[in-house]
Amino acid sequence: MPARTDGRKADQLRELRITPNYLLTAEGSALIELGNTKVLCAATVESNMPAWLRNSGRGWVTAEYSMLPRATAERTVREVNKGKPSGRTHEIQRLIGRSLRAVVDMNALGERVVIVDCDVLQADGGTRTAAITGGYVAMCLAIGKLVQFKVVPKPPVVDYVAATSVGIIGGAAMLDLAYEEDSAAEVDMNVVMTGAGKFVELQATSERTPFDDAALTDLIALGRKGIAEILEVQRAILEPR
Amino acid sequence: MPARTDGRKADQLRELRITPNYLLTAEGSALIELGNTKVLCAATVESNMPAWLRNSGRGWVTAEYSMLPRATAERTVREVNKGKPSGRTHEIQRLIGRSLRAVVDMNALGERVVIVDCDVLQADGGTRTAAITGGYVAMCLAIGKLVQFKVVPKPPVVDYVAATSVGIIGGAAMLDLAYEEDSAAEVDMNVVMTGAGKFVELQATSERTPFDDAALTDLIALGRKGIAEILEVQRAILEPR
Amino acid sequence: MPARTDGRKADQLRELRITPNYLLTAEGSALIELGNTKVLCAATVESNMPAWLRNSGRGWVTAEYSMLPRATAERTVREVNKGKPSGRTHEIQRLIGRSLRAVVDMNALGERVVIVDCDVLQADGGTRTAAITGGYVAMCLAIGKLVQFKVVPKPPVVDYVAATSVGIIGGAAMLDLAYEEDSAAEVDMNVVMTGAGKFVELQATSERTPFDDAALTDLIALGRKGIAEILEVQRAILEPR
Amino acid sequence: MPARTDGRKADQLRELRITPNYLLTAEGSALIELGNTKVLCAATVESNMPAWLRNSGRGWVTAEYSMLPRATAERTVREVNKGKPSGRTHEIQRLIGRSLRAVVDMNALGERVVIVDCDVLQADGGTRTAAITGGYVAMCLAIGKLVQFKVVPKPPVVDYVAATSVGIIGGAAMLDLAYEEDSAAEVDMNVVMTGAGKFVELQATSERTPFDDAALTDLIALGRKGIAEILEVQRAILEPR
Amino acid sequence: MPARTDGRKADQLRELRITPNYLLTAEGSALIELGNTKVLCAATVESNMPAWLRNSGRGWVTAEYSMLPRATAERTVREVNKGKPSGRTHEIQRLIGRSLRAVVDMNALGERVVIVDCDVLQADGGTRTAAITGGYVAMCLAIGKLVQFKVVPKPPVVDYVAATSVGIIGGAAMLDLAYEEDSAAEVDMNVVMTGAGKFVELQATSERTPFDDAALTDLIALGRKGIAEILEVQRAILEPR
Amino acid sequence: MPARTDGRKADQLRELRITPNYLLTAEGSALIELGNTKVLCAATVESNMPAWLRNSGRGWVTAEYSMLPRATAERTVREVNKGKPSGRTHEIQRLIGRSLRAVVDMNALGERVVIVDCDVLQADGGTRTAAITGGYVAMCLAIGKLVQFKVVPKPPVVDYVAATSVGIIGGAAMLDLAYEEDSAAEVDMNVVMTGAGKFVELQATSERTPFDDAALTDLIALGRKGIAEILEVQRAILEPR
Repeated sequence: MPARTDGRKADQLRELRITPNYLLTAEGSALIELGNTKVLCAATVESNMPAWLRNSGRGWVTAEYSMLPRATAERTVREVNKGKPSGRTHEIQRLIGRSLRAVVDMNALGERVVIVDCDVLQADGGTRTAAITGGYVAMCLAIGKLVQFKVVPKPPVVDYVAATSVGIIGGAAMLDLAYEEDSAAEVDMNVVMTGAGKFVELQATSERTPFDDAALTDLIALGRKGIAEILEVQRAILEPR
Repeated sequence: MPARTDGRKADQLRELRITPNYLLTAEGSALIELGNTKVLCAATVESNMPAWLRNSGRGWVTAEYSMLPRATAERTVREVNKGKPSGRTHEIQRLIGRSLRAVVDMNALGERVVIVDCDVLQADGGTRTAAITGGYVAMCLAIGKLVQFKVVPKPPVVDYVAATSVGIIGGAAMLDLAYEEDSAAEVDMNVVMTGAGKFVELQATSERTPFDDAALTDLIALGRKGIAEILEVQRAILEPR
Repeated sequence: MPARTDGRKADQLRELRITPNYLLTAEGSALIELGNTKVLCAATVESNMPAWLRNSGRGWVTAEYSMLPRATAERTVREVNKGKPSGRTHEIQRLIGRSLRAVVDMNALGERVVIVDCDVLQADGGTRTAAITGGYVAMCLAIGKLVQFKVVPKPPVVDYVAATSVGIIGGAAMLDLAYEEDSAAEVDMNVVMTGAGKFVELQATSERTPFDDAALTDLIALGRKGIAEILEVQRAILEPR
Repeated sequence: MPARTDGRKADQLRELRITPNYLLTAEGSALIELGNTKVLCAATVESNMPAWLRNSGRGWVTAEYSMLPRATAERTVREVNKGKPSGRTHEIQRLIGRSLRAVVDMNALGERVVIVDCDVLQADGGTRTAAITGGYVAMCLAIGKLVQFKVVPKPPVVDYVAATSVGIIGGAAMLDLAYEEDSAAEVDMNVVMTGAGKFVELQATSERTPFDDAALTDLIALGRKGIAEILEVQRAILEPR
Repeated sequence: MPARTDGRKADQLRELRITPNYLLTAEGSALIELGNTKVLCAATVESNMPAWLRNSGRGWVTAEYSMLPRATAERTVREVNKGKPSGRTHEIQRLIGRSLRAVVDMNALGERVVIVDCDVLQADGGTRTAAITGGYVAMCLAIGKLVQFKVVPKPPVVDYVAATSVGIIGGAAMLDLAYEEDSAAEVDMNVVMTGAGKFVELQATSERTPFDDAALTDLIALGRKGIAEILEVQRAILEPR
Repeated sequence: MPARTDGRKADQLRELRITPNYLLTAEGSALIELGNTKVLCAATVESNMPAWLRNSGRGWVTAEYSMLPRATAERTVREVNKGKPSGRTHEIQRLIGRSLRAVVDMNALGERVVIVDCDVLQADGGTRTAAITGGYVAMCLAIGKLVQFKVVPKPPVVDYVAATSVGIIGGAAMLDLAYEEDSAAEVDMNVVMTGAGKFVELQATSERTPFDDAALTDLIALGRKGIAEILEVQRAILEPR
């Protein structure tokens, strides 16, 4: 089995730390650190509904994603200076939004929008999956206040959700790719799963080496293992004993 | 098994027709009609390389996707009038580009960019997968001229690629979802496969009903069946007997 | 008299074909083919009025025009990627809108906006005049449904309208210029006329060879002849015997 | 014959004053005042050619047009705050550019671009035709310096060019419409002519009352008369005795 | 003491002329000429309040600033063609707005917005301070009509306000810098003062030669002297004997 | 003397902490925390010069400033989603750039651009002055590497620079205003000074209560005291004993 650049085993996550309530200013927030990847997640509850949901009695969850210019080893020009978010940004924030919505009961949430801002302070691969994992914690903390103060009658969050990336490098399946690994991977897959172990989203892609069913099976197994460990970290914060 | 609105069987494709060389103006083009979905695909070969590929000896394939305002039953505002492509557009054109690149040998292509424009004239679900399938034909016709006139020493297209959508509706897996079916689906998956039967891209998503391994297996089998039939249509055009 | 590249006589139109109801999705639509020029026209009736017409009891007709990237022999960058429509696009869609409004009784239309989308699939000169001619058919089909279902008390369309281009090439007046002819013309004129034979719009321009009254008279006569023939094609579709 | 609001006769121009060299900063400039309409025109000679003219040995003339927010009785929002010029602005600046190019020998100009900025300080109808008339003076003053200092071997400006608007109000043809007249006109026509009395551009439009050949003939005669008077004012400045 | 390029003494203003009511179209307007610097100021009174002031009973004053392309010796590209105002424009129009608001009683103004447009026709240094001085006159003329017609119960303008620039060149403090002086200045300061001699705004900046308290004291004294003279010119217009 | 909301004395700074090298990815970085205000500063050295400095042998320092959406108690819409930075953002990043440039010898820096990104993670007043203070540290760390590896022959940073805000609240001068104090201040002043105690920038503004020389003198004294303390913190990091 090929050695990984940081000495990890093929099925080993990077060190994961989630600091809840990092911000005083936000209803819910979390700084998630996954190895050198750092994403600051902040959740906002607004009652200013998009037109298509007004008077529906139902809520919505959406996400925004951005990277600070020096999150990367080479400076990235700010998207505001190009006048619009890139295609990559759009793709990522749509993924985060869908993932979080999968575990929220929109009727229980009522006519409220939860916006989860995910800002990457430092990027070393896996920023989108870290954003889902950390964004979930920020969202729970914000919605938790609605529950605590009885603004909503029953808890709108119905399950956990977490995500990880897996990939095939040199023919071998690997868990939680760092940036350099990601660049070298033949196949790259993001998996989003609920606390109940079901898939919310599965995105496997291979521009270079189309893959077969066996590879897919390996990647899914590895993703499932990693997500189980990530869920433990989330639980320790949200349901401390 | 639930009846489908248009009377199809669960594993049945809509009628598929591909008209090659629809345009006089483009190097390669194809009008793909899949049921009521109509996408006009046009391929352009340019030698004006992006900076990061200059002097690399390698080529690139990219795609652009757009819908005419009345492709849809309710008129959609033109993206140019909003000043920028939507997130959905970005997501789709990135998917088409990755899918086509998976079957092109960039060294054989040499320093050329192939741009595949996919414009939806009428939309009834499956526009992104139809764009991959039809865009492949347009690309082959355009690259075929490079081969014919010996501009490139060996054929750069190394395999077929085609795509379809599958989904779970009322608990049952269905092939090639029309618009109304797509809106009602619990799980929605796009599959892109090569002529050799390998995966290029797999995107399964479920905001509403997270799904398990069994469902995933069913969906993949259905997608594989549909793609096999689509490949036949492509072959009849590109390798007529 | 100079021979034309496609063998036409100086006062001869290119072959004109209008396919009504090309789209299932739009209230009214028409594909107009004039030689190699193909424009897809779709009409939408909306009740969402611009602020300056609200509560006026009067309607409005407006048009949008766009070219697909490969409508032209050399690929054109999409306007959405430049962030805004070009000056040429603005000029053309304003012309189409004015031309169509000239034959609509806005009081009879009532508080409704008809948007006519004209998308050029393939361009070989005369796209703006073809868009007027075809857009008129799409508009009539859409408004016809308002009349049929008695949504409006009396027919809002009060006359036909059609357009053609004429020009002077090598000193001779020519009807219906194809792209190469247009590029070579000393004087270029677009004429828009009603079924009653009156002018709605006359735009003659000559950057290279300012022209005199005699030339103007010739061009107008030629335009009148061409429009009479185009009106026949419109009538055969809208008032079939 | 209907009385005009300002007491003018139907064939009478408003008072016309052109102040050459209004600006110290520009190579050529002119403030044109036509009744209450005031347009500041400034011409710039640049050697930074657009790509399509580089190494052609030929020059180019282009124009930009803008209105100050309080040129109008009701304040107009600045176009910069909408992010882009309006369709009307595009249409006008293209017309000014074509008109000025019609009298410039681009080979004699050599690889230079003349940009003519036309900024409307106060608007009371006829701003686009005033901009052509005044812009011509600014352009001549700027190009005159190239001739004076022998930067160009022979004079590039080959004729005069001037413009006016005419229209039909209450059935009668009128010269040089002020804003209120323009709003009330059934037919509105802009005429651009050379010093030799030939047409450069003719734009007649009628959304409300399509017009016949007789009306066109009347309008052209009136335009020709007005332009002859305007040419006198230009000549008095550029060829003083 | 170093001689100034235009022969002025160190504490001497350039010739200042303010032409009130330059425009027929605006409620209040003034053309201010300070040496070769010319700024056209126009004030508009609107009742269309920004959301945050609606139903507050209070008014607002805001300013917009722009330069015509040939206000400068080298042509400047229009900001509309870059899609947005520059940072410099934003900075200046915010300064003008704050300065004018400092002397307006917003309760007396009532729910009205005064927009002061400052368009630089010709620039030779000091355009932002000239815009404050001239914009004040335009604003007073516009608000004066509200007072005259008893639209407001008591006069909302409670004091004069004027501005000038001062700087240190070759170690010596100078009043009212022209463009070339400004470019050469070690320290550059804009002072805005009320008729009562109090500071509204003080902006001193030195990228090149940080300055001490003594220099600051000198600059302030010089600014105070210049503003006293400018106030005289304003008073002669607004309170003529 | 009025009590401050957080119990500070009028001349007391909030707790100041600067964490150097917060990021692994940037050449130089610092997280500055001033009470609850947190700004992440990152410095980048690029050799891609703006056109106007190419081949000048001289360098440049520039800054960019942005706030995360939940830096504030109420969520702020991302500027990228409005298509452009606000006027406030422009004003602040220009101030930071000028302040940093004041202490850099551009000849010693050579043809390099230092970009200092200042991203506000949490905002409680004083973000622009904190950005100057923290941005200076980030810049020094980045330029320090150029010195260490002898890329530049002599140290380009010639002095310290730091900034603070002061204001008058209820008639009393206060140092280092928190957000609520800033909103209530009659006069608000930002002071930027060098290590040698000279002014780089002084910006005093008062929309509500124009101020006199005595107030100015008080504010300057208070600013000077605060900056002296801030310089100590910078020195402890950059010149540790």
